[in-house]
This record gives sequence, C-alpha cells and structure tokens, in this order.
Amino acid sequence: MSWLDRWGHHDGSSAYLSDPAPCLGDSVDVWLRAPADAGISAVHVRTTPDGEPHYAAARLDRTVNGEAWWRMPMKIRNEETSYRFLLRTADGSTRSLNALGSTRREVTDAADFRLSTYPPPPSWAHDAVVYQIFPDRFARAENHPIGRLPEWAVPAEWDTPVAFNTPIGVRQIYGGSLWGIAERLDHLQRLGANVVYLTPFFPAESNHRYDASTFDRVDPLLGGDAALRQLVDQAHRRGLRVMGDITLNHSGSGHEWFRRGQADIHSPEADFYYFGEDRSQYAAFFDAPSLPKFDHRSAELRRRLYDGPDSVIGRYISDFGLDGWRVDVAQAAGRHGAIDLNAEMARLTRRTMASANPESLLIAEHQFDASSSLRGDGWHGTMAYAGFTRPIWSWLATEQLGEFWGAPGPMPQYSGTDMVTVMQEFAALISWSAQTTNLTLLDSHDSARLVSMAGAERQRLGAALQLTLPGIPMIFAGDEVGVPGVHLEDSRRPFPWDETAWDSTTFRTYCELIALRKAHPALSVGGLRWLHTSDDSVLFERFGRDETLIVQVTRSNHTAPVRSVWTAASLTGGPDLVPGVDLPADGPSFNVWLVSAG
Amino acid sequence: MSWLDRWGHHDGSSAYLSDPAPCLGDSVDVWLRAPADAGISAVHVRTTPDGEPHYAAARLDRTVNGEAWWRMPMKIRNEETSYRFLLRTADGSTRSLNALGSTRREVTDAADFRLSTYPPPPSWAHDAVVYQIFPDRFARAENHPIGRLPEWAVPAEWDTPVAFNTPIGVRQIYGGSLWGIAERLDHLQRLGANVVYLTPFFPAESNHRYDASTFDRVDPLLGGDAALRQLVDQAHRRGLRVMGDITLNHSGSGHEWFRRGQADIHSPEADFYYFGEDRSQYAAFFDAPSLPKFDHRSAELRRRLYDGPDSVIGRYISDFGLDGWRVDVAQAAGRHGAIDLNAEMARLTRRTMASANPESLLIAEHQFDASSSLRGDGWHGTMAYAGFTRPIWSWLATEQLGEFWGAPGPMPQYSGTDMVTVMQEFAALISWSAQTTNLTLLDSHDSARLVSMAGAERQRLGAALQLTLPGIPMIFAGDEVGVPGVHLEDSRRPFPWDETAWDSTTFRTYCELIALRKAHPALSVGGLRWLHTSDDSVLFERFGRDETLIVQVTRSNHTAPVRSVWTAASLTGGPDLVPGVDLPADGPSFNVWLVSAG
Repeated sequence: MSWLDRWGHHDGSSAYLSDPAPCLGDSVDVWLRAPADAGISAVHVRTTPDGEPHYAAARLDRTVNGEAWWRMPMKIRNEETSYRFLLRTADGSTRSLNALGSTRREVTDAADFRLSTYPPPPSWAHDAVVYQIFPDRFARAENHPIGRLPEWAVPAEWDTPVAFNTPIGVRQIYGGSLWGIAERLDHLQRLGANVVYLTPFFPAESNHRYDASTFDRVDPLLGGDAALRQLVDQAHRRGLRVMGDITLNHSGSGHEWFRRGQADIHSPEADFYYFGEDRSQYAAFFDAPSLPKFDHRSAELRRRLYDGPDSVIGRYISDFGLDGWRVDVAQAAGRHGAIDLNAEMARLTRRTMASANPESLLIAEHQFDASSSLRGDGWHGTMAYAGFTRPIWSWLATEQLGEFWGAPGPMPQYSGTDMVTVMQEFAALISWSAQTTNLTLLDSHDSARLVSMAGAERQRLGAALQLTLPGIPMIFAGDEVGVPGVHLEDSRRPFPWDETAWDSTTFRTYCELIALRKAHPALSVGGLRWLHTSDDSVLFERFGRDETLIVQVTRSNHTAPVRSVWTAASLTGGPDLVPGVDLPADGPSFNVWLVSAG
Repeated sequence: MSWLDRWGHHDGSSAYLSDPAPCLGDSVDVWLRAPADAGISAVHVRTTPDGEPHYAAARLDRTVNGEAWWRMPMKIRNEETSYRFLLRTADGSTRSLNALGSTRREVTDAADFRLSTYPPPPSWAHDAVVYQIFPDRFARAENHPIGRLPEWAVPAEWDTPVAFNTPIGVRQIYGGSLWGIAERLDHLQRLGANVVYLTPFFPAESNHRYDASTFDRVDPLLGGDAALRQLVDQAHRRGLRVMGDITLNHSGSGHEWFRRGQADIHSPEADFYYFGEDRSQYAAFFDAPSLPKFDHRSAELRRRLYDGPDSVIGRYISDFGLDGWRVDVAQAAGRHGAIDLNAEMARLTRRTMASANPESLLIAEHQFDASSSLRGDGWHGTMAYAGFTRPIWSWLATEQLGEFWGAPGPMPQYSGTDMVTVMQEFAALISWSAQTTNLTLLDSHDSARLVSMAGAERQRLGAALQLTLPGIPMIFAGDEVGVPGVHLEDSRRPFPWDETAWDSTTFRTYCELIALRKAHPALSVGGLRWLHTSDDSVLFERFGRDETLIVQVTRSNHTAPVRSVWTAASLTGGPDLVPGVDLPADGPSFNVWLVSAG
C-alpha cells in the first residue's frame, strides 16, 4: 500500500520547524508540505492554548520539486504545544492532518503533533550509536585479574556455555570487568558506536546486578570505583560517552537499606519499602522476595536515589562523569496500587541530572506503550520495545522463541504493512523529540537475539531498519558479530574475541550502516515519511533541509516492485535510480539511495 | 459497512461488569461476548497494575443466542483501571480487542477500556432528560412582574424578534424569570424531561449572564433568591432536579471582585485575576475586556468559588438545593499559558459538591476533545459537542449556518459511517461512565438550532439518536416544538406558549421518544453495539441484562437494506421484524425494535 498522503506531510522534525526546541513565549514557524497539484487552497495550524482552539493561517512559502511548503506562525504558550493542520481542499471541504495522516473527519487530540518547551535531550544524543554491554560478559582485563568470588557465584570460563532456565543462570560469573571494557574500546570505535551503555555495575547477588545490595560503590568484581573511573576517562578521551543503569523500582533484598529498614522500624530506611505490619512481608517486583519495591513516598529515599546532587543519580554523573542513565523497569517504578509517583520520580531524576550535567541523557526502560510517560519533564526517551523491537520481530522472525513479553499466545506475524502501522501508531502518540531519542533496539540482555529468531540475513535487515530509522540505535554487544541467543540468559554469552568466530558479513554490514548513518545526518535527525509497504518490503524517505534519502528493506523476493520517481545514487552498492525504473524486488536485501532529483 | 466485530464486543456497560463502580481492592468480573462459532480458544483480560501488564484468563461463562460470554476476574488496583482483551483464535494467533474493536496487531493503550474507582455520578443521572432553559426567554411569570431594567437593558416584548449580529443581541430583555419557569413545570413533565438546567442566573450586564457581576445573589430581574428557592422547591416536589451554570473561567468586568481587585492592589481580590503592572491590562477570555480571566492560583479565589462549603459552588447546593452545576468553558478555566490548574479546579469542585450533596452532578462545557479532562476525580461528564453534536450535524444538516466552532472552513459533510466513526473515536478515549454521563445535545443557546439547518424531519432523526444513544439527552427549550434559530442569539427566541405555533409532530415525537427511553432502561444505561452504517442509515443495538433493542435511523431512501437476523417487535409503529426480512429502507425515518429472539 502507498503511505503517501496526497494531502501533505509533517512530522515535527527540524525540516518542518524553525525551532524544534522553543521556549515559552516564542513564536515558531511550522511548515506543512503537500503536492503542489493537490488543489489545496488554504492551510491552518490548529493549537489549543488554554484549552481553546486557535487557528493560524499559512502562506505558501515555496514550491520545490512539485511540493508546496506552507508556512504558519505558531505561538508557544504552553509547556507542550499540541497541534495539527486543517487543509481546505479544491472542493471547499476541509481535512485534518495529524501524526496518523489526514482525514476529512473531525479527529481527537490523541495523534496531534507535540512540541515541548522542556530542555531538549543533549545534542550528542542525535549522533549516538549506543553499544550495550553486560559487564560480566564483554571482556576480561589483561592486567586486572578478577578477585575472590562471592559465595553465590558460580565461576565460568570464557568458553563455558551459559546456563539458562536454571537458577545457575544468574549466578555464573565469567569475569568480565570494567577494566576489560576500557581495554576494548577499540572495538566500539571500529564498529562506529560512540556510547557505552553498561547494565548495572553495583554490587549485587546475581550476575545481572538488577538486585543491588548497595549503590555506594561499583562492584569490586567489576573492578570497583577505580575501574569505572578508568573506563569513563578512557571513553571520554576517545570521544565516547558512558551511560549507567539503575533500578529505581526496587533493590535486592540484600541491599543495605532493605536490611536496616526491615530490621529496625526506627531506622531512616524503615519507610524506604512497602513493609507490612509483619516486616517479613513487603511489596516486591513480580512478587519476587529478592526484589523489594521502593516506596517513593519517602523523601529520604528520593534524596538518596535521585533528588539532588548527593543522590545516586547525581553523584555518578558529577563524580564519575557518567553521561547518562538508563532506568530499569521505569514503567513500574514509583507505582504501587493507587500510589503513583512515577512522573514525579522522572521529573526529579531529570532535574538532578540536568544540574549535575546539562548534557546528560535520561532513558527509561519501558516495554509497552510509553507515551503517557513521555510527556512532561521526565524521560528524554525510552527503550522502544513496543514501537520498534516487537514490530520488527513480528515481520522478520521465522522462529518462535518462548513467551512474548508475558503476553498469552505466540508472537504475532506481521506483513511489512502491519509492522509500519504499529510503528506509526506508537510514534503518533509521542513527540518527535521523544521518537528520535528512544533507544531503537533489535534485542537486549532481556530478550532472545534476533539472529536466533530470524537468521543472519534477516538480522541484517533489522540492522538496516535500526540504522536508518529515527531513534538512537542500541546494539547489544555481540549482535554485530552474529552472537546467537535463544533466551534472555542465553543472549548474555561472553563476547567472542576470536574474530574467526564472527559472522564477518554481519560485522561489515553493521560497520557500513553506522558509517552511512554518520555520513548522512538525515538518517538520524531527518524527518521520516513512509512511502510504500507490502507483505515483504517497506520503503521510506529520510530527509533534512539538505538531503533526502530513500530506504528500502525487503525480507524476500516479491513481484510487485515500486516504480522510481527519483533520480538517486545508491549508497549501498545497488543500482542507481532514475524515474520510471522498478526498484529492486529481490530479498532479503536493503538499499539506501541519495536523491539528487525527484 | 458492518460494524459487527466477529471477534467480540465489550463496552464497559453493566451487562459486561459485575460492578461498574468498584472500589480499590475489589475484584470485578468482566465479560467479553463473541460469536460462539468464532473459533476463539482462549480470552484474557489485560490490565496494567503498577505499569506492568497482567493477564487474567477467562472461562466460558455461558452461551446465549449463539454468543459465548467469556468471564474474567479483574483486580482493581489503581484509581483508573485500563484494560483490553487478548483473544486466541483458531489459527493460534492472537487479537487485541479494545474500544476501537479488534486487531491482530499490537495496539497502544489509548483506546483501552477504562474503569474508575472514583465515586460514580448520582444514580438519577442515568434516567435524566435535561431541559436547558435560558431564563430570560422561557416564561414570564403571571404574578411576578419584572422589575426596573438596568441601564444596559433593551426591553423586548415576547413577540419581538431577537436581534443578532448586533450589540443589541446580548442586551434585549424579554422578561422571563425563575418565577415563570416554576409556573411552567407542567410543560417539562408533559414532555418527560426531569432535570431543569438553567443558564446563569447571577446578575450581569447581559441577557446571557456569562459576565457575572456577583455570585452572591440571584439576579433580581429573574426574581432573585426567592424565585430560585421557589423554583427548586416546586421542581423537587415534582421529582425534578435543577442544575445551575457558572463561569469558573472568568467573570464580567463589572464583577465586584474585579472592581475591587483592579482598584486596590491591597484588596483580598487583587490576585483573583491576571492583572498586568498597569492594572488596566489583564488577561481576558477571547481577549474580550468585559470577560477578565480568573487566576486560580489564588487560594482565596478558590475558596470563594469552589473550594469548600462556603464557596459559590457549595452554597447554592447546600442552601438553595441545586442538584448540580454545569461549568461554563471548562476547557479553558484554570488555564493560562504555562499555568494549568484545570484538573485541580475540577477535582476541588467535585469534592465540594460531593460534601454538600453526594447526589449532585457536575458537568463541564467542553466543545472539543474532552478525554484528558474526563480522567481523574473531576467532571462526571461534559457537553458532548465533539463526540455527538457535530457528527450529527455533519450527517443531518443540509444548510451551512455560519462558522463551525471557530474552525476555518465549512461544516464537514458526513455519511452515516463517518458520523459513527467520529462518535466511536471520541467515545473510545473515555470511560463508559463518562460516555453515559455526557450531555448529548442537538443544539444549545451557543449554537444555531438543528431544525434550521436540517429541517423538521431530520431534526426528529437527531432527536431519535439523542434519545436512543448513551449519554444524558439535553433538550434546549424550544427544540421540542420546532423553534428555529440560525445563529446562537437567534436560537434564544422566547418560548412560544401558543401551541398553535408548535410543530406538533415534533412535539409528539419528543414525547414518545422520551417515554420510550424511560420504558426501556437499555436505551439509557444499556450497552451500545454499532451494527451497520451506510451513507444514509445507521443501525445499532442497545442492550441490558434483560432486554435488547435495535435502533435504525435513516436520513433518506436507500437501496441496500440490511437483512434482519432478529425476531423483534416495533416500538415505533413500524413493521415487526423476523429473520430474513429486509429492514425498512425509506427515509427520513427511525425505528426502534424490542428483540424477542435473535
């Protein structure tokens, strides 16, 4: 199906706004582009300052390549401006155009475009390619042997198969460390990644460390505080950034705060958790006793965790130089029945980070519809499991691997049209800023690996989507060399430093795609216009003020090629395009073209 | 098109819930009904307590008339529970079903069903038929002559044409009063209305009184406090309710608070408005200097207006016995640029009313998408201009009458399918409670009259929709006898007490439809299932646990009748139905049938 709306396009990207990060009181110019021959006689932008609709008329700004660019002034009166367009068409009727496209019917505000006055994400986020590292599994250090293991740990050699679906799974320690990561930054740079995101580095009673026993120090098993300082220092020297990972939802039951709070009702930590009358009873994440839930009503807890410069959130930024945080299970943190301090937690966390370093980035793990938590002054973005990962799996995967995010029933199977429909529906509820700051991932330490579900060829199609669509690409270490994983713990396999074990085609593909993204900013910060989708192929345009690229991703051969309307040069070794020729219809394949005319 | 989703139906009405008004901690049973032959192998209800999805499995409760009723337990953990269904189908795949229907794709939370734990609207709201009266224009009193007119007033005889599009329009005084209304309650009872909603009765400098000069007393022109007491007393004796109308957004510039606040920076009222440094400058509604906007940051203003028993909101309920309030321009009240106290205002207003009379009803004027203000503990419902009035106009109207709620461009023209699509899209964002408590109106003192846009026959179709769809029908006095109006002020014509001037067919139709609604509770509180729509006809089902009705509204003859699957008796003098016969295809017409089998 064609996705081109003959009535026009807008998406909140900077090609369409004179200022994508305005302040209260500013006046921003906003553009709508529409085919010059659509017969549009007038365009208005509709905003709702103070809850009342306001319409500002457009003038025709310019016509380029057959497209009329309508320009309207938009006064920024609210912290978040919600806007859509009204078009007068040749027959005298009107159409509304919002983030779901245009209709001649009246629409709700749900899919209005959104423009925020809150400080934007740091500019480095726009160029970021994040490399996710599970510290125990990336690299042992040459000169920093691992210390004595705690009692719970089960030592493993680098080539020991990871255990999963057994209690051993979270106890195997392979001995990777922050020292080891610091020694291996060459690999990230060779790949082109420029942000290291570390899953938790706090001491805990598992290898994943989402059950922290303290936030006061870096786990000595990983090299302790010194290793983190060394890693951040080394990374910064190379122009790389480092992000941490913290659980604001819960701690481990071995956490010092939990132990004191449980033992002593008069301790400062006594109200940090939801203890029952009988203090052996308490609220826990997924009812797992090892993961007691924090009670964010405690001002002292907030102060220790995220409210103010001395908080964990603040200190690791100001003291260790972390460039950002990923907040674990942020969808649940601060929420317990009728108690909901989630938005306040996000707002305070961001404020603390902004004070410690205005250029820091705050990303929330959110596995479902995150739109309601992406308004206001909280998360810059979320992990886009719902709007990116799952639709891609559902299009590319050929293997069902266990349960699908807890939902009863199997992973759905999508056509290309289905995938894009889901991506668009989730994107329509969030601002362009959030969409471009969401982490777009194919898999993670919390999932099977796409290669094990879809095979290497289709994984590379996923990478092509990841590196040409809006969002911050997040590559789970190992994906780029074809490491498999049929279960979340299986996916945490030690990184194979023996290059002969790599899928070299996959590695080359990642390197080339990342280089392409860097060479063409339209692929990261440019607008997105879906053009055509079918069962087996999707086609879209990324564009900035200076360049337009066409991207096609095809999962298998198909028989209904799209006809080019462009003169465009292939950037991926395929055929160039001239108007009238058919686009390639063989698959699995992907193509990126740079438009010179059309 | 057929609207019957072969995968099932749910809408939050009491046929589908063991308790439509649960408390925190309750467990509610929820049902989904689906064709027994759909091949559904499993159903789950998905909720998101604490932000994490939770799935509860259904068991097959019963099969009735070929429909399987699946029953699931739903634990009420949050103040508002957001839920949808997951169905496993015969081919092993899953479908999501929410308020927009079912899809095999993953969906956002936007159209999840919503169930609130906040106290429900008063039970009388379910049977309410509201009669809106513009006090100056309904009835003069026999024994209470109007007093001396204020300077601004232009006296008018009952048969003087109303002036509009002239400054005189808001200054004509016809001399209707609250005494007069009290004398004419027989008319409401003859019609079947059981709630009087009075547009403002406070002293002001216009006939519409949305520019109050005080809230301390009832306008002497309308009979003063004594007349309001008499009206409420008379109404209550007859089992009728009375609602008032208040501007929380602004007052008149002649308001005593405004005068004191403007004159004296040290007065208690000095911060009741958004005064500039130069106090001749102030924020005003639509920038009209006569309508200064309230600044709700003032605690004293809140206390006087709506916070606590001594507030205006509280006093007229506890002292005068009002049964509810309609809040004027509630979409804008409490909002000014980045200051947004709208939700807090709604919450405090409701709290004050609940204290004064737990059985009082709070309705907001909201002319656009009200969904975001219908969550939480604020308005029970809103005036459904967006989800009801405008789609009906766009289907039935044949005449364009001036501007369309400020939007550039003409009123859109809808097919029946368009109308229902819009109704469904707006309803999908709000709870069933809000949908059934919204005022459903065909027109008001703020619009042209439908009869002037669509003619009497089509107006009666509008009335048929109004009195058979969910919501509280609100009839603007005069609609029931065919009073025309081509402009909002023209619509405020004095009520024609000479019955020979009435459209007797229209009056009889309203009386019969209201009687029908009262005789069949499914028409007020029952669920709603859209069945079939086309350009010219819409067909839907209203159902409770004890009865099912089929409603068809047809605007003109059409050639593709729907075939009956029911055995059903006409309640509107039309042909009865048996399976296999065609439904009537002539129009304008409406039919209501009571199903005995099918």
